[in-house]
Amino acid sequence: MIIRKALSEEKRVSTKTSAADLVTETDHLVEGLIISELQKRFPSHRFIAEEAAAAGAKCVLTPSPTWIVDPIDGTCNFVHRFPTVAVSIGFAVNQELEFGVIYHCTEERLYTGRRGRGAFCNGQRLRVSGETDISKALVLTEIGPKRDPATLKLFLSNMERLLHAKAHGVRVIGSSTLALCHLASGAADAYYQFGLHCWDLAAATVIIREAGGIVMDTSGGPLDLMSCRVVAAGTREMATLIAQALQTINYGRDDEK
Amino acid sequence: MIIRKALSEEKRVSTKTSAADLVTETDHLVEGLIISELQKRFPSHRFIAEEAAAAGAKCVLTPSPTWIVDPIDGTCNFVHRFPTVAVSIGFAVNQELEFGVIYHCTEERLYTGRRGRGAFCNGQRLRVSGETDISKALVLTEIGPKRDPATLKLFLSNMERLLHAKAHGVRVIGSSTLALCHLASGAADAYYQFGLHCWDLAAATVIIREAGGIVMDTSGGPLDLMSCRVVAAGTREMATLIAQALQTINYGRDDEK
Repeated sequence: MIIRKALSEEKRVSTKTSAADLVTETDHLVEGLIISELQKRFPSHRFIAEEAAAAGAKCVLTPSPTWIVDPIDGTCNFVHRFPTVAVSIGFAVNQELEFGVIYHCTEERLYTGRRGRGAFCNGQRLRVSGETDISKALVLTEIGPKRDPATLKLFLSNMERLLHAKAHGVRVIGSSTLALCHLASGAADAYYQFGLHCWDLAAATVIIREAGGIVMDTSGGPLDLMSCRVVAAGTREMATLIAQALQTINYGRDDEK
Repeated sequence: MIIRKALSEEKRVSTKTSAADLVTETDHLVEGLIISELQKRFPSHRFIAEEAAAAGAKCVLTPSPTWIVDPIDGTCNFVHRFPTVAVSIGFAVNQELEFGVIYHCTEERLYTGRRGRGAFCNGQRLRVSGETDISKALVLTEIGPKRDPATLKLFLSNMERLLHAKAHGVRVIGSSTLALCHLASGAADAYYQFGLHCWDLAAATVIIREAGGIVMDTSGGPLDLMSCRVVAAGTREMATLIAQALQTINYGRDDEK
């Protein structure tokens, strides 16, 4: 509600790591609200959250129960009132993701996933696509916050490789979290990105896995939530093909910043 | 309703000019329904429509009253059940666009514009963004149907130029028509594309102009509806800057195919 209201208002915008890495008062407000509510109920739990991390809080996933919060995923969209914006909350215990909740603010779609219990959107069960052939795939990605010429060259070269592999299309919607929700619902066949963070991924990872999908590292190995990179797909074959096609863009690690 | 129902079903898909240029039975069904309804009421009117054109009908805009119809814009999205799909109907008399209607099928948003009477979405007046600075802009584009290496290089190089100019972001949502509706509503600051058609543009052009925006040729000159290329923006300054940044990709003309 706060986000929908703020969408229609003028916003004071600040930049973080680059001119394309934006933050608004609403990000801070929503993050504060979510954390203070959760802290009241679960005083011993830990938190990893986007704006706290930007302010210098350490992003380390310990075995303690930990909430991983992105108050507004798609902040650049939000600033422009482009209606593709979400709140993402994941929860991990013993460094294992237990559940995730993602709310698409303008379309009022609530995506949920709990380990072993399935994934749903507004109560409807989610199921990934079974596609294994890149030449029949719709692939999603995001540009990432770094915009130096070398990083942009790699970003565009990865997109070129997938288009040369005859992917039906590549889409860039401006919200990693909602792109991953499209994947979970079978509306896209694969997703990859360099330069996203653990709070973009945590909730969506549970939802995709519970919808039958694969979330892995861009090296083809197991997902590392802190590695700022990911490939996700409906099938392991598709995820592996995408991983093999990509050149690495180095964004460092969330837990070493 | 037909499109929303078909979205959830398996589809028989055919290709047109390239492996990425798709068509389904639903495109044909919806186009047939729209044209037969309009023909009953306006038997003397002419029609330019996507699937009729693909089947060889000439695309020539004469002074006669002419309906310009895209039954499903975002067919590749439609095939993948990616929920960004629209019906677009424009109307021209004396080669001048008089009104346009665009329906976002999954979000049930109806965009309308009539020359001199304003533009609306579900009854709410639309107003473009007033941004004039690329470094504060959200820019939309689409890949286009040609996927040969030379065309892809130009497409990616244009995207690179805008990211070098520090555009906040570039989005690719898979529907030219709906991207143009986002522009009309102020949710994006500019749009450009090579390889779209008059049926992608006709309705949206009226809506954008009535929302206060600019629709022009990528050369910086006046829009030529048949030239398969366009720049649109909230302001003339922004449209001109985008046009100057672009390299041309030659897609021929709709009225010479």
